[in-house]
Amino acid sequence: MRALTTIEELTKEQILHLVKRARQLKAGSPSQVPPGLVAANLFFEPSTRTKMSFEMAEHKVGLKVLPFDAESSSATKGESLYDTVKTLEAIGVDVLVIRHPENAYYAPFLGKVKPVVINGGDGTGNHPTQSLLDVMTMMEEFEELEGKTITIVGDLAHSRVARSNVHLLSQLGADLLFVSPPEWQAEFPILYSLDEAVATSDVIMLLRVQHERHDAQQSFTKEEYHARYGMNTARLEQMKQGAILMHPAPFNRGVEIADDVVEAPCSRIFEQMKNGVYMRMAILEHYLKEEMECE
Amino acid sequence: MRALTTIEELTKEQILHLVKRARQLKAGSPSQVPPGLVAANLFFEPSTRTKMSFEMAEHKVGLKVLPFDAESSSATKGESLYDTVKTLEAIGVDVLVIRHPENAYYAPFLGKVKPVVINGGDGTGNHPTQSLLDVMTMMEEFEELEGKTITIVGDLAHSRVARSNVHLLSQLGADLLFVSPPEWQAEFPILYSLDEAVATSDVIMLLRVQHERHDAQQSFTKEEYHARYGMNTARLEQMKQGAILMHPAPFNRGVEIADDVVEAPCSRIFEQMKNGVYMRMAILEHYLKEEMECE
Amino acid sequence: MRALTTIEELTKEQILHLVKRARQLKAGSPSQVPPGLVAANLFFEPSTRTKMSFEMAEHKVGLKVLPFDAESSSATKGESLYDTVKTLEAIGVDVLVIRHPENAYYAPFLGKVKPVVINGGDGTGNHPTQSLLDVMTMMEEFEELEGKTITIVGDLAHSRVARSNVHLLSQLGADLLFVSPPEWQAEFPILYSLDEAVATSDVIMLLRVQHERHDAQQSFTKEEYHARYGMNTARLEQMKQGAILMHPAPFNRGVEIADDVVEAPCSRIFEQMKNGVYMRMAILEHYLKEEMECE
Repeated sequence: MRALTTIEELTKEQILHLVKRARQLKAGSPSQVPPGLVAANLFFEPSTRTKMSFEMAEHKVGLKVLPFDAESSSATKGESLYDTVKTLEAIGVDVLVIRHPENAYYAPFLGKVKPVVINGGDGTGNHPTQSLLDVMTMMEEFEELEGKTITIVGDLAHSRVARSNVHLLSQLGADLLFVSPPEWQAEFPILYSLDEAVATSDVIMLLRVQHERHDAQQSFTKEEYHARYGMNTARLEQMKQGAILMHPAPFNRGVEIADDVVEAPCSRIFEQMKNGVYMRMAILEHYLKEEMECE
Repeated sequence: MRALTTIEELTKEQILHLVKRARQLKAGSPSQVPPGLVAANLFFEPSTRTKMSFEMAEHKVGLKVLPFDAESSSATKGESLYDTVKTLEAIGVDVLVIRHPENAYYAPFLGKVKPVVINGGDGTGNHPTQSLLDVMTMMEEFEELEGKTITIVGDLAHSRVARSNVHLLSQLGADLLFVSPPEWQAEFPILYSLDEAVATSDVIMLLRVQHERHDAQQSFTKEEYHARYGMNTARLEQMKQGAILMHPAPFNRGVEIADDVVEAPCSRIFEQMKNGVYMRMAILEHYLKEEMECE
Repeated sequence: MRALTTIEELTKEQILHLVKRARQLKAGSPSQVPPGLVAANLFFEPSTRTKMSFEMAEHKVGLKVLPFDAESSSATKGESLYDTVKTLEAIGVDVLVIRHPENAYYAPFLGKVKPVVINGGDGTGNHPTQSLLDVMTMMEEFEELEGKTITIVGDLAHSRVARSNVHLLSQLGADLLFVSPPEWQAEFPILYSLDEAVATSDVIMLLRVQHERHDAQQSFTKEEYHARYGMNTARLEQMKQGAILMHPAPFNRGVEIADDVVEAPCSRIFEQMKNGVYMRMAILEHYLKEEMECE
């Protein structure tokens, strides 16, 4: 397979292999990406973090990155994503990292183009590299997720991260709890309040309140959200010994997380970002090595 | 000469040399650009294709590319292009690729600055690297253009590509036909309909319908254009054995070309993009080698 | 110290060392920046010159530059600069060059993050690399600034350059004169007209008229400004033998400087830009070498 589009397409073995390999790369193992390959990052939605994390990973595995500016691209002349991707294939790009607001944007060209495609996030759908770096961060802490309790807190309905993680973490044997305002609950079962969940969880995963997506429809203020669903010092103190706090970032201080909790000792928020580079290195290596072996 | 601004300034011998060299580079010949040189791509009009093609060519010949963002440049503080170019010269840039909406934008600084200047397209004027990659694509097919019939179809009046190609292809001995709606005909003589032309042409070159330039003035709909001037399966079947279809891209599916014709066996559209990288490598090499020899 | 934020924090010895080192680098001395380091340039205000000058300097000292696009960054999702900087630290960036419209934007994270921070200009505050390249340009001319008369002309109130240079040049023993319209005079003493100052100055430093900052409030036209405070051929002829003309650029032709004066023999405007690259190389080397020595 020459693409990573959803976390669901990976077997448990592949996931554990990627986590293991990312941890080796973090420990200094040299990357095995063949030399001379070229990447392009097509980000049709703004993102400092994911784009720069990929840029750093690409640099570290020895890929040349061709700059691509979505806003001044021919997409502004009405070109379809299929034609943009075919163009980059013709120009000689070997791997495309794509973030796009449309769910499953990759469907029209999947399997029809030569470059490896890595999904950097699609609409409200999938964000497999984020899920994998989350698992890596948890496994660094616990080695084994079997029997661990992981609580996901926040906007479940609109989160790329939530859905991907549910599948992935269940596969690895974790028990999942959900905490969310009723309007963002979607298909997820809500049994506990955040106060109840913190006391029994090994991992608290906060999700981002995405103001830009639904400011108008919100029935509660930021302050109300913070009071009921935000992580604060009081709740931090209720967490189990050894439990950790995660957030995919960017985070809203004073909304889903209190200012002084961001860098608390149990917070792994910046470690997640660090791990993201190594996980993306492992992913690039996996798909680009495979390519060479197939040829 | 330290600049490529128009196709007209090249002799037939220089053109044939560039085509030959681009084909050698495509076949794997190493580039002879001196090491340690720096390029900047100043694109004051959006373009995925041309900009990324140059970026790839620059990468492949070993140039370092300094990122230049036209929108956040000092041009927004009212700086003239002359002063921007002088600035980049002072900073140490060796080669400038420039696309600009103004015809002959290069006139004020041509011959007054040290960096090599490659015209990546000016207004409705010239686009010499596109013309050269087109010739390369035709010569890959036919080796010799003497006596070949080439039909250019579409918006002749506003096309950078049309005018450059007329000069170039005539010089190489090709016979040119033109097909165009009356309002886009300009000085070009129109003798045949597209249906007549396809049957006798060795090359059909479609031009882009540039909606962004003249949507308001059009006296026909996209559907009407497609019916009379668009390439479709029926017309494809009337093409001569061995004839090819070209388009400088980005193309409008369903306007100048039917959806299922884009990737037809006789289409060279994506091969043109591929050749563009090698032709630009040959051009960069030509002007940067020359520079070294002059010093 | 792991940051360069203001010119005031440098001792006279450090300044003279940086100038000396920049001149050595200009003469071909190899840079001593450790290999494998990564830079990011966070420009929250447009600037061709400073950004590209840093990009070239980073390239020349062997730094990898991660592209950062302020406009599509998470800053558009409301992220604070502190969190952006912490993110880049987590991703593995070693040196951050930042230009930001807010005075002392760096205060919240200074000393709290691992990457070296170089101030590329803050609000109406400091622009230390510009001041240093100005001093380098003067010392190339005069070797010693003790007793030299330097006149700064223009918008003293809103200029990042003016304040930094006053401190720096006084420290080096230069005598400073100021010429400015009353509304832009701020705390600077104005004793002479430009016509008086040109006759006695070794250096005339013009400042940029920043139309975008205060177009509305101006009580004089561009033509009036040019007549009273602009450098023209008549004033050029009154300059002392050996005196030089400087401008931090981008300059407004016909406002602070006449068209035909920009490239006059005594103008060092483009030499300043050239020196900027070498001074930034010296600065990067200084802070990144220091880092290695501390570890």
